This record gives sequence, C-alpha cells and structure tokens, in this order.
Amino acid sequence: MTSSHSTPHARSSWKVPASIVAKRTSNPIRAIVDHIKVKPNPEKSMISLALGDPTLFGNFKIHQSCTDAVAKQLHSYKANGYPPSTGYMASRQAIADRFTRPDAPLTGQDIIITSGCSGALDMCIGVLCNEGDNILLPRPGFSLYQTLADSKGIEVRYYDLLPEKNWEMDLKQLESLIDERTATVVMNNPSNPCGSVFSKQHLLDFLAVCDKHHLPAIADEIYCDLVFSGQEFFPLASLTTTVPVLSVGGLAKKYLVPGWRVGWVSIHDRNNIFASEVREGLNSLSQLILGSNSLIQAALPDILNHTDEAFYHDTRVELEALAKLSTDILSKVPGLKVIVPQGAMYVMIAINIAEFKDIPNDIIFTEKLLGEESVMCLPGSVFQCPNFIRIVFTSPPEVLRDAYQRMAEFCARHHV
Amino acid sequence: MTSSHSTPHARSSWKVPASIVAKRTSNPIRAIVDHIKVKPNPEKSMISLALGDPTLFGNFKIHQSCTDAVAKQLHSYKANGYPPSTGYMASRQAIADRFTRPDAPLTGQDIIITSGCSGALDMCIGVLCNEGDNILLPRPGFSLYQTLADSKGIEVRYYDLLPEKNWEMDLKQLESLIDERTATVVMNNPSNPCGSVFSKQHLLDFLAVCDKHHLPAIADEIYCDLVFSGQEFFPLASLTTTVPVLSVGGLAKKYLVPGWRVGWVSIHDRNNIFASEVREGLNSLSQLILGSNSLIQAALPDILNHTDEAFYHDTRVELEALAKLSTDILSKVPGLKVIVPQGAMYVMIAINIAEFKDIPNDIIFTEKLLGEESVMCLPGSVFQCPNFIRIVFTSPPEVLRDAYQRMAEFCARHHV
Ligand SMILES: Cc1ncc(COP(=O)(O)O)c(C=O)c1O
Ligand SMILES: Cc1ncc(COP(=O)(O)O)c(C=O)c1O
Repeated sequence: MTSSHSTPHARSSWKVPASIVAKRTSNPIRAIVDHIKVKPNPEKSMISLALGDPTLFGNFKIHQSCTDAVAKQLHSYKANGYPPSTGYMASRQAIADRFTRPDAPLTGQDIIITSGCSGALDMCIGVLCNEGDNILLPRPGFSLYQTLADSKGIEVRYYDLLPEKNWEMDLKQLESLIDERTATVVMNNPSNPCGSVFSKQHLLDFLAVCDKHHLPAIADEIYCDLVFSGQEFFPLASLTTTVPVLSVGGLAKKYLVPGWRVGWVSIHDRNNIFASEVREGLNSLSQLILGSNSLIQAALPDILNHTDEAFYHDTRVELEALAKLSTDILSKVPGLKVIVPQGAMYVMIAINIAEFKDIPNDIIFTEKLLGEESVMCLPGSVFQCPNFIRIVFTSPPEVLRDAYQRMAEFCARHHV
Repeated sequence: MTSSHSTPHARSSWKVPASIVAKRTSNPIRAIVDHIKVKPNPEKSMISLALGDPTLFGNFKIHQSCTDAVAKQLHSYKANGYPPSTGYMASRQAIADRFTRPDAPLTGQDIIITSGCSGALDMCIGVLCNEGDNILLPRPGFSLYQTLADSKGIEVRYYDLLPEKNWEMDLKQLESLIDERTATVVMNNPSNPCGSVFSKQHLLDFLAVCDKHHLPAIADEIYCDLVFSGQEFFPLASLTTTVPVLSVGGLAKKYLVPGWRVGWVSIHDRNNIFASEVREGLNSLSQLILGSNSLIQAALPDILNHTDEAFYHDTRVELEALAKLSTDILSKVPGLKVIVPQGAMYVMIAINIAEFKDIPNDIIFTEKLLGEESVMCLPGSVFQCPNFIRIVFTSPPEVLRDAYQRMAEFCARHHV
C-alpha cells in the first residue's frame, strides 16, 4: 500500500466504486420485474399488457399533421441549432396559449420545455426539495417519482389512494405526513396506474390541505385530456389562487409519441411565491443538459394548433371503448375486482388473494400468469400497491380479448 | 406564527426557497455574459462569434442523407415509442461498430445513448463522483464541466493548459492536485475553447499519471474527427490497456446538429474495473429521464453508416480554411496573439493587456468591442482563462473578414 500521507496522495488501487447517487437510483419496476425468472409458456404467443406505451401495436398513432409539422422543420434545416435552455420562445408561447385559462393564466415565460414529462418532474422535484427533506407521493403511483426522490436523497412519504373511493386521496392520512421538512406533494390526475380522475370537490379539498400547510404542489397532468364520458378534468391550478403549482405535461400520451421526449413545466404562481427563488432555480436546472430535441420543439406550435380535433376525439373514444371492454370481461372473472377506470390508459384490478389456492400475492400471480398463459402485466407492488395488478389497455380489442380469456382460464384454474 | 411542535407540523408561511442544488447550479457563461450591460453599436450590424453552434449561418449543415434517415423513421410511425433507457440496441451497436478499433474495442453493451454529449457528461461525472469528492477539470475548459460539478457538490480543481505549448496539459501541476478524494479527471481533446489537438506522446504522459494514481478518466472527444492537416486524433482509450476510460461523444458537432440532442458514453474498460459497480450505476442513472429522441436514435445506424465520406471531408476542409483565415488576419493585429488552432471550431486569442491604454481585462475588451463594433465574442474568463478571448470561426468567410476588420480597427484605436 502506498502511504495516503505522501503528496500527492495516491489512490492505492483500481477499485472504482459507483457514486452514492448512482447506487441509490433505482427503478422499482426493474427491481421487481428483473427478478421474475419465469419464462412465458412457449406454446402460447406472448401478450404484454405491461408497458405504458400506446404505440406498441400500431393501433394508436400520432396524427399525420404532426409528423408533417416535424418533417417541415427537418427539411428547413433551420431547427438544428441549440434552442435556449428553457426552449424556443415561440414554442413556450404556443404551450402557454394552448393551456392558459382565465382561472389559471399562463404566458410563455411560465413554460419551460423539458426532456419529456420525466425531465419536467426531475426539475420540479429538484428545485423544491433538498436532500433530507421529505416529499409526499401517491400510493399507488408512477414509480419514477420514487426513483427521482431516492436519487436525490429525499425521504419518500406515501399517501394512500383509496380504491373503494375511485382512488381518491386519503387526505387525512396525507395531512398527517406533513412536517416542517415536507417540501412538496406530488398529485397525479388522471392517474397512472389507477386510471382515475379526481372531482372538482376532491381537488378543492386537497388544495385546502396545501393551503393550510403552505405546501406548494406538483401536479402531474400528463393525461390531462384523456378522460372518459361523464368525467371532467380540472387543472389543479385552476382551482386555487393561493397555492403555487408546478404542473407538468408533455406530448407523450395525448399525441402518442412517448419516444419524442418533449415535456414541459407550467409555472402557476398567482402570488409570486416562486418569483423570489424557484423560477430562477428552474432556469438554472434547465441549463444542465438542454434536454429537448430542437426539431420537435420547433414543430410544437403546429402540433398544438393545427391538429385536427377529430384526432383527440377519436383517441379518447377508442381508449374508452377499450376500457369498457376490459371492465366488462374482467369484472366477470371470479377472484378479480376491477376498479373501473375513468381516464388515462390503465386499469387496476384487485386480486382477492383469499380466493386463490396457490397464489399468495400479486408477484406470484404475475409470474404464474406469465408462465402459464404468456400474458404479462405489472404487479401492483411496483406501484407500492400489493395484491393488485395493472393492465395497460391500449392493445387492439382482439389482443385484449385473447389476453383476458387466458386470464379468466388462469383464474379459474387457481380459484378455490 | 404557528408552533412548529404541533402535529402535523405546519409550515408557517408561503416562503418557498429553491433547493441548494438549484442554487449552486450556475452557468459561468450566463453569469458573466448576462452582466454585460453594453448595447451593440446601433450603426453597425451585429456579428456574434460567441456561440459554439455551427448551424447559425446556414453555411454548415447536416448532409441530406441524414435528414432523409430521420424522415424515414418519422414516416414509418415505428420509432415513436419508448426506447430502452440506454438506447435502442441497434443504435448502440451502430455506434460501437463505428468507433471500435483493435486497440480500443467496443460492443453495443459498452454504449449508452444520452441526451446530447452534455447528458453523457452528466452521467459520467454523476457515476464517478460523490458530493465532497474533487474532480480535475481543464483550465481553460468547457464551462459545463464546472456547472455539473458545482450542481453535484463536487469540488472543482483546475489543471492548467499551457498556451505556449499548444495548450498541452500541465501534467506536473495536474498531478499535484490529486489526493485520495480525487474521483476522476476530465480530459477534452480536441478542445473547446482552445482548438488544440493533443499528440500521442502527450496523451501517453497523461495516462501515466492516471495509472500511477489509479484515476479513471473521462475523455470528452466530441470533436474527435474535426482535426486539421498534419494533426492526428488519438482516442484516449486506444493508448491504454490499464486506465478505465469513459469517452463521451455525440452528433452535435461532427454532424452539425447540436439541437438534436443525441450523445453517448463509450465504456472502455479492458480490465473490468467498471464491471463491479460503474456500469450498473450508469444503467441506473440512464433511467432517470430517458433523454434521447427516438426518431434520431432510430436513424443513427443510417446516419453513421450511410453518410457520404465527402461530407466529413468537406466539413473539415471548410473549418480548416476558416481557421486559417482567422489566424492569418488576427495574428497581424497589434496587441493580439493567436494560438493557432489545430482542430474543432474555436480559436483562443491572447490579449496583451499591457499594450492597451484603456482595456484592463478580457471582460472590458469584450464589452467595448461589442459597444463599439457590434462584434460579440466570449471573454476567456468564462473558461477560467482571463485576458484571452474565444472566437468561434464557423461563420461564412465574408462575415469573419468583416468582424476581424472591425476588431483590428478596435485594437488600433485602443492600442498604446
Ligand atoms: C403519470 C406519469 N407521469 C409522467 C410520465 C413520463 O412521461 P414522459 O414519457 O413524457 O417522460 C408518465 C409515463 O408513463 C406517467 O405515467
Ligand atoms: C467540449 C464539449 N463537450 C460537450 C459539449 C456538449 O455537447 P452537446 O451539445 O451534444 O450536449 C460541447 C458543446 O459545445 C463541447 O464543446
């Protein structure tokens, strides 16, 4: 060993550890799914209902007017340079114009374009929370929230969503988690993985808690317009004049292009609470990697303004039909209980574990279903919600029917 | 004031600070340039030689075969979904195939696709360094290195590049900075802002220091193929079998598309030193935001394999001509000393401050030049290198001639 007191101090071997940050960065989906060692049944075709990617089967795709808008930028050779770190002003303005409303006004200055909605979440959590602070996250909830919080050394405190109340937040329990180190709360509406849509009153009740405790909110509204008949989506920021809200969104879901990696932060701050530090902090964080592709950014005004209304309508109608198909079939399967989705592209299904003879939990359910029927869905445990499974219902109807038929047979075989 | 001891603990006001991380994230370029309050001379057209973006004037643009490759993906509707967090395997493989060499072998597994070379740097620094560690950075050097290190709470230690030796690293001084908390060293070749290209022997000398101190290296080789006649570029990893190297690169410069935001990490690790933790750590970090646009990723194999060799050649020849034009004109200007560039798209020019009557430093030089001549360049201070200026010579020759003529007149006016 070389002396560590000689100058210059030598590192004495080729041991190179990964950083603490890298080690504490982990994806709960990978952590659980990578441990499933079961192979699909080789006699049955594989059907995956696991991935929240609506493009996989070709039945959902972006409108041609949008690809045309990108092609126009591509062939102009005018949008290949560095955009400003917060995005092209014209694109920020187009987002503001699209989402501004009298009760939640936005200007271009209030928008920061990011590398997907994930990049927006990274910035919002990063600007509001210090290492050692705590953050309130929904359970069940999108697993990236935890990945980001863990990576930054922020303590995660889960508040419960109540399946028996259409996944409303348990606001009493949420409130009980708040202390002086609580930096922010993430609210997701419509919800992944629940497919739920919150009522106006419920959002007002949530805001009352934020108000009482002076808690700024992060509203993950990436599924904002994907709500089914009889439901209405209320942007969180439109229901408060006092709580400052960072709302995040993006092209991924509504425009069916998750790979394009364009998202945004909308800063709703009627009382200039973010004006002193948080806006500047968001600007600073935006300079780290300059996340979002210039071609798509430049095409954003056309995408947001010139997409045929029929496209949005058709997407919604199609999703709703698939949600109904899923509910209709699966709610008849003994041992399963469907919590009927109200929006987005997901349905959570409770497994009545007591009714199965050899299935002690959601992870074993998922493994056996894969091994016997070659149907893959995610165990609720990856969303901190054991004994549920999540199904993504964006596959074509005939694929869903086949999968659900197999699930029904699987449940029948294992039911007591 | 509410009691902070009641349960639940209330935050007692709407003061919302930005996080420590956000506050310590700053861009030295912005910090200095935003303080320049001088306006350009309204009687003269503005010429900016400040931005490292070769697309600004339209004289440099990506080859049509590359835009065709992207258009093909766009119109296929097949590359709109989520790529794996490390990138499409076919694209990783294409990068490996393009850059592998017998003395620095690469497979697809060794490549991680990132949001620009900036994203690659973020990951490499993030996986190797803990808060409180120190990192060795070149002075003058690309300012993002410091921004990333500051953001992560890593202590920056600058090693000097020596203008009188074509900006070679001062290896003795570099070595003197190393201690047991030195996590890594960033080496940039060819260099921004210097336009220098290191010799094989110099790189071997650098590697000897890394070897002696067991210091893994980050090689920023984004300008790898942009070297001028008589120079040769040696990938750092090709000159060592012992030092593990993370090399970073991307499409931005060579393909003239910085806005596309596609970069990569190449893991060179002949002795499996990174195998125990660092590879896994890079994988984990890649899952945070999924940075890189799917269309461009999917087009990468075509871009790397089917671009006409003439495109690379023409780009190099054109850059070299502009470098020569810059050197020829500016080296005749009294008070300035050009350090002749050997590659990339930058030239550093020493200001002989003693020869100017009313210009005490590079920042004032830059301000007055802007105010009197409407020519903008960056003061060396933004690269930690006072009394130099950096010029980006990617503008068309007539624009450069105009700018240099104005600079000559400016210097003549202020020269003693
Ligand atoms: C609730 C929620 N927020 C954010 C995201 C991330 O969106 P993006 O793909 O734009 O990063 C997803 C993706 O599935 C999501 O479900
Ligand atoms: C030395 C160096 N490294 C990295 C980068 C960042 O590259 P990208 O635009 O791909 O993030 C630059 C950009 O100017 C650079 O000069």
